[in-house]
Order: sequence, then C-alpha cells, then structure tokens
Amino acid sequence: MANDNRPIGIFDSGVGGLTVAKQIIATMPNEQIIYFGDSLRMPYGERDADDLEQLSRRIINFLMSKNIKALVVACGSISSKIFDRVRLQVPQGFPVFEMVTPAITATLAATKNQKIGVLATAGTINSGTHERLIKQALPNAEVTAVAAPLFAPLVEEGWVDNDVADMTAKIYLKPFSNIGIDTLLLACTHFPLMNTAIAKALPKGITIIDPAVQLANDICCQIKERAADCRPYDVANEFYVTAKREKFDQIAHLVLNQFINSQFVILGDER
Amino acid sequence: MANDNRPIGIFDSGVGGLTVAKQIIATMPNEQIIYFGDSLRMPYGERDADDLEQLSRRIINFLMSKNIKALVVACGSISSKIFDRVRLQVPQGFPVFEMVTPAITATLAATKNQKIGVLATAGTINSGTHERLIKQALPNAEVTAVAAPLFAPLVEEGWVDNDVADMTAKIYLKPFSNIGIDTLLLACTHFPLMNTAIAKALPKGITIIDPAVQLANDICCQIKERAADCRPYDVANEFYVTAKREKFDQIAHLVLNQFINSQFVILGDER
Repeated sequence: MANDNRPIGIFDSGVGGLTVAKQIIATMPNEQIIYFGDSLRMPYGERDADDLEQLSRRIINFLMSKNIKALVVACGSISSKIFDRVRLQVPQGFPVFEMVTPAITATLAATKNQKIGVLATAGTINSGTHERLIKQALPNAEVTAVAAPLFAPLVEEGWVDNDVADMTAKIYLKPFSNIGIDTLLLACTHFPLMNTAIAKALPKGITIIDPAVQLANDICCQIKERAADCRPYDVANEFYVTAKREKFDQIAHLVLNQFINSQFVILGDER
Repeated sequence: MANDNRPIGIFDSGVGGLTVAKQIIATMPNEQIIYFGDSLRMPYGERDADDLEQLSRRIINFLMSKNIKALVVACGSISSKIFDRVRLQVPQGFPVFEMVTPAITATLAATKNQKIGVLATAGTINSGTHERLIKQALPNAEVTAVAAPLFAPLVEEGWVDNDVADMTAKIYLKPFSNIGIDTLLLACTHFPLMNTAIAKALPKGITIIDPAVQLANDICCQIKERAADCRPYDVANEFYVTAKREKFDQIAHLVLNQFINSQFVILGDER
C-alpha cells in the first residue's frame, strides 16, 4: 500500500488543541502537523452554531489549501455543537476527526461504577452532548456535568500549575468531591494542561480522561501513514495563529516541549 | 435653555463598562442610559485597530438609532487604540467621551511624587497610550505599567472578591509593592470591580484611580440635562448584549445594585 506524506491538519480556537497535537505527535511521530489556532476569536464557547460554522469553514479552507490528508477538529465547542455541519464542509469521504466520539469511547471504557463527571466550558456543558451520549450507551449512568469557565483563560495565561490554578480547580471541582465518581472526562482540549491542579483537587482513585489519547489512536488506525523513511527530524510541523503569537509559542513550548515559531495569519475580514 | 431628554449611549466589549454606567448614574441619576455590551466578541484587547474600528462602527450605528444625545466609549482598548477614528464615526460636533482623557486628568491631579502605576489589559499596556500621555504632562514622572490579563475573565465570571481574586491580584500587583508609587491608575473598565482585591494587594496609602468618576463629571459639565421633572423612577435604562445575557444580568446586579433585564441583540453577521 502506498504511503501518504501529506500533513494532518488540526484546528482549535487557541492553544487548547495543542494537547491534541501533543498526543498525535506522541502516537505518530513520523507524521507532519499543520496547526491552526484562532486565538483572535477565542473563546469559541459562547458562539452559536451558525457563527461557529462560518468560522470553521474559513479555517478548513485554509487547512485544505495546505494539502492535508486528514482534519482534526480539536475544539470541544465545535465538536459538541456542530460536528455534523463541519463534516459537510469537507469533500465526501475525507477523514475528519472530532473530540466527542473518542471522549465517549474512552469514558465508557474507563468507568466501572457508571458514576461519571464531565468538566468543560459553559458552552459545551450547556449543549449537553457528552451527558446525552454517555446515557445513550449506559442508561443507568449518573453523570455530573460541571462548567469551568476560567480554566481556558488560565491556560491561555500560562498559569497551569500555581496557587491560583490550584484554588480555582478546588472551587470548580468541589461538586465531584463526595459523589463517588470513578471517572472524570475533560471535555475541553485546554483542560489536560490543568491536569496537575485538577488531580490535586480530586479525591484519590478517579481516572481522568484526556480524549486526545483515544483520538490519536483512532487516527493512527485510519489514516495512511507517511513513508517509513520520513524520519521525525524531517518533519517540519507548522503552526498558524490569528493573534497572540508570542503567548502561543510560550504555551506551545510548555505543551510540546519544543521551541515553536508560529506564523501570524489573517483569514477574511477580521471581526 | 431647553432640556434634552434623549438618552446617553454607552458601549464596551462586555460588563466592564458597567462600572462607567454606575458612575454616570451616580452623578446624573436623572439621565437615561442605553448600554451595549459586545459580550460575544469580548475581550477586545487583542484586536487590532482596523478590527476595532469595524466593531465600533456597528455598535455606534445601533446606539445612534436609539436617538442618543451623547456617546461614551467605555472600553479601554478602543479608547487607547483608536479613539481618533471613533470620533470620525459620529456626526461633527456630536459629544463623544472616551476613557483615556479622564484617566490622565484624574491621575495627574492625584499624584504628588510623580511615581505612578498603570494597570490594564495587555493590549492597552502594549499600546503605551497612558504612559505616553502622563509623561507628556509630567516629563519626570516614573510610570510602571503592568498587564493583568486574567482580571477581565475573573470579573466576567463574577469572581471579584474571593481567594482566587486575591491571589491573582497579589501576583499581578507585586511589581508595585516596593517602588513607592502614590497613585495607581486602573486603565481597564473591568478593574474597578476588582477594587477590594487590588486594594488588599497594594501597600497602604496608594490612591487608586477609577477614571469613570472623572468621566462622569466631564459628561455632567458638557451635556444638556434631562428636564428636571424627569424623576429617576421614570428613567428606564436599557441594556443590550450579544451573548451571555444571564451572566451579564448577574454582574450588572452586582455593579449597579439593581435588577437588570438585558436584551439579546445580533449586529451584522456574527463572527
């Protein structure tokens, strides 16, 4: 079978999707990544479906112009609100991956007592998507869904492991402290970056789900790989942002443990 | 002289401008306010001048259609980056007020030792506007400008007086702890809501400047008032938002100490 050396396209509203890029790179170090972070317009959480559809169309056109072989919607808001519409924005049969399906798969595989927590942005929690899909698979599951609106701004500021992060986590995670959940799903791609603070604020023994791990496995199973003689050091990943370039590079360094030099790009008329 | 019963229009990217509305109401309880909060697109801090110009044009058109008699740009980013352009978006002679001029006036009046701190969003601090204008008036002034990017998200979450607010203030205000400033200018309209946390994190004896106090006085001096027989209880203020209506109403209640029932509005195609 022929190899496919085209890159994988990933997008998110900002730095959150970098946690997804990280897992993809860890699972498939041979692949090339083109990352798009719409940091000018973050957060996407409050935007409605039509608005998200417009934004994602522009970004998808941009990534398609880079000749990608697969598209990863590394944004919890788009994944939970309009994934069906995003799927219509790419040619039939073109591989698109989103965050909800692997999140549910991994959560169902992890829970034993069917008491499950979901932590996400307000928009994703209000959409009810994860809760609905978990209960579709496990009708007796007890799902406790909690919004943590300040986690994404904290991550964007790079405050992921200081006293403010710890205290904020303590407040947001309080509802999980004594209800016996055995699994906590992080349904926002920013949140795995707060993992240390989240773990500290939870009772012991709860499995924390980062959907990107499952997602990277799913992608690995389904795409045609790069040629085996493309060594990792030949892979030049590319990062594009619509604002806050320096901050993005700082956080990307933190997440990916390598120096990133992102490129600033303007899509359409900026608003 | 005839009275003018038309309302005063105020706009900001979100809830920040409510601190300005509060001072205007306190100074001129007889006036009617039309408030516009562009909560869908907040924060404005990272947006460039052209982008802010487009956004403000739509909002100003909306407010002008409400037959206002004066316009208040209650947004630090627009005030510090493109106030000159905003002025061209209203008819010649129409009274427009922004946040920078009263901020500088109040700061110059307050400082005795000419050691001045400026606290704002990253965008406003990077614009250098306040520092430049203070030094124009006081060439020997020592100005220390610090960005506090998480203050606005904390305010938007309503976390203005808890442990997270205190600790965040402590971190951001550390540069002011031992440099002998006698005046701290809050150059973002969100920040007066963090006043308690800010005051706790500062050495004693520093004057904290909320530019809205001076601004309300400026407006009071320059506009034609409503008829004296318009009692406050006849004044129906109106509040419009582009997202997060409930959160806006909660925070508006906190700031204005009255129940607010804001209206959701869409301007142009949302992006």
